[in-house]
Amino acid sequence: MTLAKAGETFRFPVRVYYEDTDAAGIVYYANYLKYMERARTEWLTALGFDLAEVEREHGVVFVVHRVEIEFSAPAQLSDRLDVTLTLRELRRARLVADQAVLRGERTLTEASVTLVCLTPGTWRPARIPAPVQQRMEAFL
Amino acid sequence: MTLAKAGETFRFPVRVYYEDTDAAGIVYYANYLKYMERARTEWLTALGFDLAEVEREHGVVFVVHRVEIEFSAPAQLSDRLDVTLTLRELRRARLVADQAVLRGERTLTEASVTLVCLTPGTWRPARIPAPVQQRMEAFL
Amino acid sequence: MTLAKAGETFRFPVRVYYEDTDAAGIVYYANYLKYMERARTEWLTALGFDLAEVEREHGVVFVVHRVEIEFSAPAQLSDRLDVTLTLRELRRARLVADQAVLRGERTLTEASVTLVCLTPGTWRPARIPAPVQQRMEAFL
Amino acid sequence: MTLAKAGETFRFPVRVYYEDTDAAGIVYYANYLKYMERARTEWLTALGFDLAEVEREHGVVFVVHRVEIEFSAPAQLSDRLDVTLTLRELRRARLVADQAVLRGERTLTEASVTLVCLTPGTWRPARIPAPVQQRMEAFL
Repeated sequence: MTLAKAGETFRFPVRVYYEDTDAAGIVYYANYLKYMERARTEWLTALGFDLAEVEREHGVVFVVHRVEIEFSAPAQLSDRLDVTLTLRELRRARLVADQAVLRGERTLTEASVTLVCLTPGTWRPARIPAPVQQRMEAFL
Repeated sequence: MTLAKAGETFRFPVRVYYEDTDAAGIVYYANYLKYMERARTEWLTALGFDLAEVEREHGVVFVVHRVEIEFSAPAQLSDRLDVTLTLRELRRARLVADQAVLRGERTLTEASVTLVCLTPGTWRPARIPAPVQQRMEAFL
Repeated sequence: MTLAKAGETFRFPVRVYYEDTDAAGIVYYANYLKYMERARTEWLTALGFDLAEVEREHGVVFVVHRVEIEFSAPAQLSDRLDVTLTLRELRRARLVADQAVLRGERTLTEASVTLVCLTPGTWRPARIPAPVQQRMEAFL
Repeated sequence: MTLAKAGETFRFPVRVYYEDTDAAGIVYYANYLKYMERARTEWLTALGFDLAEVEREHGVVFVVHRVEIEFSAPAQLSDRLDVTLTLRELRRARLVADQAVLRGERTLTEASVTLVCLTPGTWRPARIPAPVQQRMEAFL
């Protein structure tokens, strides 16, 4: 995977397995949030960071604070999907990402996800670690 | 469980198990959506209906179309929580529920959830089955 | 819930929600392990202990080391199930539980689950905390 | 992905995300079964079949009947793992796969998984569709 560049939309492939579906024959709604988190983790990797390392070294965690998500069309067993991420907003201790799940050209699900950087235990806002912040800025 | 009454907030208890938590030591964000779905299913039960039966008999499924959710404070392993549901809007083929997850008096997570009634396969809007609609109306 | 007694089979009810099912219309196989863990946590509660407290106070975790599980008949959406637990073996740092998932009289899934008590981080065997061990012995 | 060959061990990479972990800081035990199912689905793909298509065309489903699984060492957030599959036994309506989850050279989890081919609804044994059976035989 090459490093993510400014203005780019990051894209990560996922495939639908039985674990993701439900008795209605489609991907269970909460599982799109899992797909979106996988893409965020891989985006950080593409920026040059390992999520677990960043959190261990800097004593912070990234926690989702708010999600607005719309489900337009269902994904199904065996589908090959893409999850996208565009960074819309970046502040000291928070960021907003626009994310989508697509099958081919078709958008199935779109979301706006607000993440906050927190100190575990106290759950108080913490600055996004400087090297991460800098790389993210370049992606804005 | 007694039948739900008009204007009431429906309330359903859940407990946090290992399956619900993540390596940050708190409930994984997507899992609050599972708790909220459990409460919706139990609310339907409290209205006098079995979700699986309703869907089988009437050839419809209830699918989540949109969620706005805010995570204010984390739930943790072993916590005893309540999930609430208030019906805010009811139309022919859709409904909007206000839901929350609380620990004691404290609201941890709040969401507005839009559900649509669909025909499986075509995924086209279908009328909410009349007896269900009637019982839901009494809960508005 | 009353305290568990010696020789008893502990029993805990669960209900099948959409989150538990898959596109085959039945409970996804891995999710029976979630049901079984819920029953183990509630069994500990019935013995007078809170899992999170025990682990925090004594600096140990209970980790599953081995599972043999057989799936005989499928559970489906809305089913009301019982999960059972009988303690078969208890040692210093490990225990073996026989567990089953039933719908009414019918056994759907049966498992033998070996748990070990470990120190987090080093993941070395640790003695089961004495008060817990004592209460468990009374349940053998 | 190239087609799987006789005697080969099939290998599929997975990465550990927050969704996979629990409050003990490690991958939740039931989630190894998800990883193993992903590998089985991708193995079928490597044999030239799409799981959803096979099931739709032939009116069968593959259902896990029995699992023996041993957890030796924990996987953690951000780990890059490999899931392997060797076909040990193949009959008319059932197959046994040996599967493992590895981090580098180290085996974290090993399992023997028995799958049966069933007719959905009646849940009676059905012959594994002939073309699938043939390709699987070549992998034995």
